[in-house]
Amino acid sequence: MYIVIMAGGRGTRFWPLSKGSLPKQLLKLINNRTMLQLTVERVIPVAKPENIFIVTNIDHAKEVSRQLPFIPKKNILQEPIGKNTAACIGLSAIYINRIDPNGKMIVLPSDHYITDPVNLKKLLISIDQSLDEMDYLFTIGFKPTYPETGYGYIQTGEKIKKTGSHQIYKVKNFVEKPDLETAKKYFKNKAFLWNSGIFGWKVETILKEIKKFLPSLFRGLQEIDTSLGKPQAFKVIKKVYGSFENISIDYGVMEKSSKIAIIPAQIHWKDVGSWNSLEEFLKKDSMNNAIAGKSVLIDTKNSIIFGTDQLIAALGVKDLIIVQAGGVVFVCHKKRSQEVKRIISALEERNLKDYL
Amino acid sequence: MYIVIMAGGRGTRFWPLSKGSLPKQLLKLINNRTMLQLTVERVIPVAKPENIFIVTNIDHAKEVSRQLPFIPKKNILQEPIGKNTAACIGLSAIYINRIDPNGKMIVLPSDHYITDPVNLKKLLISIDQSLDEMDYLFTIGFKPTYPETGYGYIQTGEKIKKTGSHQIYKVKNFVEKPDLETAKKYFKNKAFLWNSGIFGWKVETILKEIKKFLPSLFRGLQEIDTSLGKPQAFKVIKKVYGSFENISIDYGVMEKSSKIAIIPAQIHWKDVGSWNSLEEFLKKDSMNNAIAGKSVLIDTKNSIIFGTDQLIAALGVKDLIIVQAGGVVFVCHKKRSQEVKRIISALEERNLKDYL
Repeated sequence: MYIVIMAGGRGTRFWPLSKGSLPKQLLKLINNRTMLQLTVERVIPVAKPENIFIVTNIDHAKEVSRQLPFIPKKNILQEPIGKNTAACIGLSAIYINRIDPNGKMIVLPSDHYITDPVNLKKLLISIDQSLDEMDYLFTIGFKPTYPETGYGYIQTGEKIKKTGSHQIYKVKNFVEKPDLETAKKYFKNKAFLWNSGIFGWKVETILKEIKKFLPSLFRGLQEIDTSLGKPQAFKVIKKVYGSFENISIDYGVMEKSSKIAIIPAQIHWKDVGSWNSLEEFLKKDSMNNAIAGKSVLIDTKNSIIFGTDQLIAALGVKDLIIVQAGGVVFVCHKKRSQEVKRIISALEERNLKDYL
Repeated sequence: MYIVIMAGGRGTRFWPLSKGSLPKQLLKLINNRTMLQLTVERVIPVAKPENIFIVTNIDHAKEVSRQLPFIPKKNILQEPIGKNTAACIGLSAIYINRIDPNGKMIVLPSDHYITDPVNLKKLLISIDQSLDEMDYLFTIGFKPTYPETGYGYIQTGEKIKKTGSHQIYKVKNFVEKPDLETAKKYFKNKAFLWNSGIFGWKVETILKEIKKFLPSLFRGLQEIDTSLGKPQAFKVIKKVYGSFENISIDYGVMEKSSKIAIIPAQIHWKDVGSWNSLEEFLKKDSMNNAIAGKSVLIDTKNSIIFGTDQLIAALGVKDLIIVQAGGVVFVCHKKRSQEVKRIISALEERNLKDYL
């Protein structure tokens, strides 16, 4: 089994921890490990390091390698520019195809937090078994635990078969992030699952489907394939990537292919997208404060306290996010954490680049 | 004219800026100058450096000297322990008495912020002139600008005479910090003035009055006087100070003596006692934030932002005190700044001494 971890994301929503443009998957957000390290640790029980591939932006390849010293350098695939998941998956597929044209690959995002790695391991094994039995493009749907409006949903169709403890369904429909009312309906209706961004397929099958539905991407990938191992390889990748369409694998392939199926899984999972979303993964005190780092809190409640090298002391406050990192103190109302980009814009305007 | 600046106060209300037990008068709270430096700068126009005395705790003498390199080291008088203003004033009086038994001395606190130094200079000159004309113990009363409940008041009696632009009154009554209702009455009744803690007298007169009303303090001071210049001097000071009563000059002498008078002055003045009280002296932005240090504030209002070596960024918050200093971030509701001691107690309990 080959594992592909998509770690190409950029992003500043965890500023000031993300200072120096480190994207969230490379930050130590939880348990003093980066999201990428945690992701790799979760797949190590089912895959050898030489079968694990990381796709990342060229700017972050060195940092990825530093964080994962046991992953062979050649398995860290560098994108010159982010072009969404179809290109990222296509690139990794041609690398794996050269090693093992009959290989099975499982694709995972690097910015998810999963608290029950044992269930994930079972799921990965189920995907692997299912691929031996059925030549499908599998997508994984997580059973919703509340009506989340921030995720896409997949509606399951009829049952296909059972593998291990996992029931496989046809996919009826992919749906975009819903409003709250719709999310509540989806939550009641057990047929709707969270789109996890986890996929499994044979490498030859995904390449075949890319050829069918994204022919220009496929031609580009072939051009890259021809260049691999030659001195000009990255030059070719750079040129070809420039021409790639920015399209997701869901939209570009999964929603069009007739060979798709969905495996529902019960996994405690969260897309860690902002300071606010960290709350449930940090240590909690009796006043419902979520805490990382050294702190002294008095009459302080419902706050997220995230210190790196300095002590954070709070007195008589609530519903705040207090972050100290990289020479910066950031204090924000919990409801406003999505707006951290406004701070970054202000810093850019004032040319305070040291803090970006 | 001899100036005595009382800088013996200890205090932690400006934690974390006061880390390492630096008291507020030695902190750079306003305009990047310490309160002590600002106090000395205000008297330099009327007194030569060799006529300026600083009374401070032995623990802070080095720091005082560092902050005031132009003040002769021998003018920095060291107390082994704080024993309130009567002892502090008595000690400086015997030092000055040895140099100039006919000297006039003016005593000033070191933790006041005064925005109109020109008026203070006029006042100091008036006190000096008054002492030439009348052998009184002068206390200075500031004309209240609002009904403050945090200061003591002095009620003026009949007029005595006018010196320069200052009218001198008899003192009718010293009153403690009033409740709000009483403070409002005082504010309406022009006879009540804020007790400024500034005094002026002939050195021989204050020593005479100390002898009369605080005879044991006087005996101790005589013992110190005899030891001065000898190797055991500080040993004697230490022993004698241990026996001193903890008593203010107001309570110990001024309220008992018949030789007292009050000079009212119109000076924009504030006893800087907590983070909250700094508000009016810091730079303000259009959202009523009081700011020192580098900051980026978005949708943030009515807050006090005090950064030293790190940038402070705030988003969507109000009525907060945010301080960064000495490896600590302190976030506090504005109404709670008096309770900073609770943080310090918690640090002591947890043995986090590095942050004290």
